[in-house]
Amino acid sequence: MPYPESMVLLIDEFARMPGVGRRTAERFAFYILGAPPEAVAALAKLLVKVNENIHYCQNCYNLSENTLCHICSDPTRDHSVLCVVQDPKDIVAIEKAGDYKGIYHVLLGVLSPLEGIGPKDLKFKELLGRLKSGQIREIIIGTSSDTEGDATSLYLLKQLRAYKTKVTRIAHGVPVGSALEFVDKATLARAFKHRQEV
Amino acid sequence: MPYPESMVLLIDEFARMPGVGRRTAERFAFYILGAPPEAVAALAKLLVKVNENIHYCQNCYNLSENTLCHICSDPTRDHSVLCVVQDPKDIVAIEKAGDYKGIYHVLLGVLSPLEGIGPKDLKFKELLGRLKSGQIREIIIGTSSDTEGDATSLYLLKQLRAYKTKVTRIAHGVPVGSALEFVDKATLARAFKHRQEV
Repeated sequence: MPYPESMVLLIDEFARMPGVGRRTAERFAFYILGAPPEAVAALAKLLVKVNENIHYCQNCYNLSENTLCHICSDPTRDHSVLCVVQDPKDIVAIEKAGDYKGIYHVLLGVLSPLEGIGPKDLKFKELLGRLKSGQIREIIIGTSSDTEGDATSLYLLKQLRAYKTKVTRIAHGVPVGSALEFVDKATLARAFKHRQEV
Repeated sequence: MPYPESMVLLIDEFARMPGVGRRTAERFAFYILGAPPEAVAALAKLLVKVNENIHYCQNCYNLSENTLCHICSDPTRDHSVLCVVQDPKDIVAIEKAGDYKGIYHVLLGVLSPLEGIGPKDLKFKELLGRLKSGQIREIIIGTSSDTEGDATSLYLLKQLRAYKTKVTRIAHGVPVGSALEFVDKATLARAFKHRQEV
């Protein structure tokens, strides 16, 4: 037995975390070994709390400590505009920007035939269910601008044709603050294609 | 508040761990969110257990759940041969090799003027204290073969001259199984200098 037993078990547990190898798990265990007891107790408590209390919002699949997330349950938001994103992390990014005042729907992934992720694995059905209320007048597609995000966006567009709701997609183009010479070809091509009159 | 509060706090705690940035901390938090409750409860328990119960062995500064580590308290080991290493991890590596049957002394670091680590920050005094019993007939210096390990080894040699104990250093040379053409110059030079009659 190279390390004390509880240390070996802790290293095993750390090694299950995404992207954590044996060596990193050992470093984490040594950190825990030397950390202040209050910090370790706080971490242990938070682990259980997050695992027990945080679920997906029943309405939009954002993260939430309650049945409805803080956005769905906020009456000051515009509940007639809905942005479809891939992941709760995307909501965090959009909320940080601070301009968007509508609500969301998280698909919890993108279509990816290579990884065996089809429409049934994502929250499409739940999105269409939300449209039935007739309350939503615009859907903004906010999936990523990579191949999988584009494929998901296309699939979604097809599904949405049956509904009378206006559908838009977030603009792709030159990022604010970047010099043109450093922008990649695909982005520049899109920026020209979607140029706007001023 | 982008994430639920407990999630933000958990991300903060993860981000304190060595080598963990904001993004990785978020990935860890999402992993905890979706992990089976039993696994999370086990992790939380182990964190506290390791932090509370694992200390340094009072004798050799190896990791231990008791006052003395499992090596110091093992009567079948040879207590007259002592190997000095930098870190408890080195003991793990040597024990895995399985040949060494003596005991250890962990310095808990190496001399490093750049990082402000001097002799007083390491367990030299405690090592010399252990020699006074007269029980130890050989000290094997097992520090790393880099600059800091070599400096620590030299300092140790000087300190040990006052004692009559035999002092050796682990051999440096061509690693077993490696083709000569890929061995670096410094290692080859050492391998030739310390060649042995066969």
